[in-house]
Amino acid sequence: MTTAAGSRPVIAADVIAVDWGTSSFRAYALGPEGEVEERRESPRGILRLEAGDYAEALSAEIGDWLQARSGALVIMSGMIGSRQGWMEVPYCPCPCDLAGLAAKLERLDWPEAEVWIAPGLSDRSIAGLPDVMRGEEVQVFGALAELPEGSGLVCLPGTHSKWVTLEAGAITGFATYMTGEVYDVLQAHSILGRLMTDDTVGPDDWFLQGVGQGAADTALLRLLFSVRSRVLSAEMPESAARAYLSGLLIGHEVAAALRAHDGAGDVILLGAPKLAKLYETALSSLGCDAKLIGADAVAQGLFQLAQRLPGKAA
Amino acid sequence: MTTAAGSRPVIAADVIAVDWGTSSFRAYALGPEGEVEERRESPRGILRLEAGDYAEALSAEIGDWLQARSGALVIMSGMIGSRQGWMEVPYCPCPCDLAGLAAKLERLDWPEAEVWIAPGLSDRSIAGLPDVMRGEEVQVFGALAELPEGSGLVCLPGTHSKWVTLEAGAITGFATYMTGEVYDVLQAHSILGRLMTDDTVGPDDWFLQGVGQGAADTALLRLLFSVRSRVLSAEMPESAARAYLSGLLIGHEVAAALRAHDGAGDVILLGAPKLAKLYETALSSLGCDAKLIGADAVAQGLFQLAQRLPGKAA
Repeated sequence: MTTAAGSRPVIAADVIAVDWGTSSFRAYALGPEGEVEERRESPRGILRLEAGDYAEALSAEIGDWLQARSGALVIMSGMIGSRQGWMEVPYCPCPCDLAGLAAKLERLDWPEAEVWIAPGLSDRSIAGLPDVMRGEEVQVFGALAELPEGSGLVCLPGTHSKWVTLEAGAITGFATYMTGEVYDVLQAHSILGRLMTDDTVGPDDWFLQGVGQGAADTALLRLLFSVRSRVLSAEMPESAARAYLSGLLIGHEVAAALRAHDGAGDVILLGAPKLAKLYETALSSLGCDAKLIGADAVAQGLFQLAQRLPGKAA
Repeated sequence: MTTAAGSRPVIAADVIAVDWGTSSFRAYALGPEGEVEERRESPRGILRLEAGDYAEALSAEIGDWLQARSGALVIMSGMIGSRQGWMEVPYCPCPCDLAGLAAKLERLDWPEAEVWIAPGLSDRSIAGLPDVMRGEEVQVFGALAELPEGSGLVCLPGTHSKWVTLEAGAITGFATYMTGEVYDVLQAHSILGRLMTDDTVGPDDWFLQGVGQGAADTALLRLLFSVRSRVLSAEMPESAARAYLSGLLIGHEVAAALRAHDGAGDVILLGAPKLAKLYETALSSLGCDAKLIGADAVAQGLFQLAQRLPGKAA
């Protein structure tokens, strides 16, 4: 086997898609049309493994699949391709489409199966600052069929939310917002967390109040203190503090992203349903329609990449 | 002894000023003109004591002073007057001057000495949100003599930075920015801290780059990620990450505060010299003159309050 263009026979190997991030490992055994036949998830994220244990972890997670599907291709994305991962695969600069990403897949030296790792993307189109992502671009390409003419503004909410611009099937730029992580550290480690109750966050009135404040007032470091001062002044119950903080941060993010994209029309949301629902509510309250898409998008994206492996006939 | 107006004889008791916050205890034995004769500092902040241990702690800290200065008045400010402190003293609403604050001092029931606790201030003039402070208002009043005509915009940098507006000796409004605490939790608990070295933060070029970005671009949750992406893209050394993050946050705060005050002229900085120096550098880079004032301002403010104790002749 070689990666030289054109030398690869057209095969119909099974594809195993692996989304391997910092805190979790997800694998999908795919059928001939990319349909998900089996799925697995484990907490074996790369930051939870000793360096060098990747081969052992992959065998443990999908060894039985590899035995049952002789000759299967494994395609992986996410932080497994970072400097802290199994093998560093350099970022591709934007703009980049599916074929461009596939051309930069790199083969791993692993005797148990044919394994490829996808690169991440880099960009510098927002405010002149560098930005990077690993894994989200594969989700976006996996959901491409759901985007009209392959264009649109896609939001992937999370620890590090990504806002991705697509034009005719190519990712032309993106930006990262540390919304989820800032929320996590503030509730776990700041004075704001001390007054919080265990109430879960839903798209309620306090969440929406936070969204409104966070979107209307850019002074985030001042707004954060209002989580405390509104409780101290008894105008907000402690049970609302978590939802209000979540709203402030999501409102700040969404408004900033819409400004950066000149108040783009509809926003496509790609992510876990509960968090995506909060973003949908926030966007709606700011007069912006949102559409939730992309179940198993990462598996679809990795399947698409497998069809375009270097050397594989188109 | 009573607090009824006019019934108190004019006395020349010694004054002991106590600034009792969440994480530290500071005491000053003052001479007849308010000059600091002795000072003490300990880590016995209110969050580091068992509830109810306040009397014991105060005896341990200043018992010898009380014996040596028979009849001394003790005046305290800070979180000792909060709900979590020794006795809750309600906030005074803005606008409030020194006489207004003094009128709301409350006497503590403590057999060992005559002890008074100062109230904090509340305000709602910025963005319609409630805000509160306890202790900083006393520092500001203590530095009043250094403000031209008792007016100006005063910044007290810190864990929770305060920006205080004064007009003719009265505090007319203020706002809190969680800058210091957000900096602390991000470096200690977020992914940004993982790439930081032990280098200390000074007003260097990376700090100033952060200030410029943080002031020019309001999308703070996006800018925060640039601490990581600039290191990953090798355009910033890891040793600069701490200073750059500090600059981003201080730049965000200062620009937001100047916007809220319609680009006020000079800013008066009141705080620990090293942190005040960072703020002075940030303000200067944004075209704003800053003046550092206020050594022992809290002691001076408490001394001024002692002169205006309820019932004491003016």
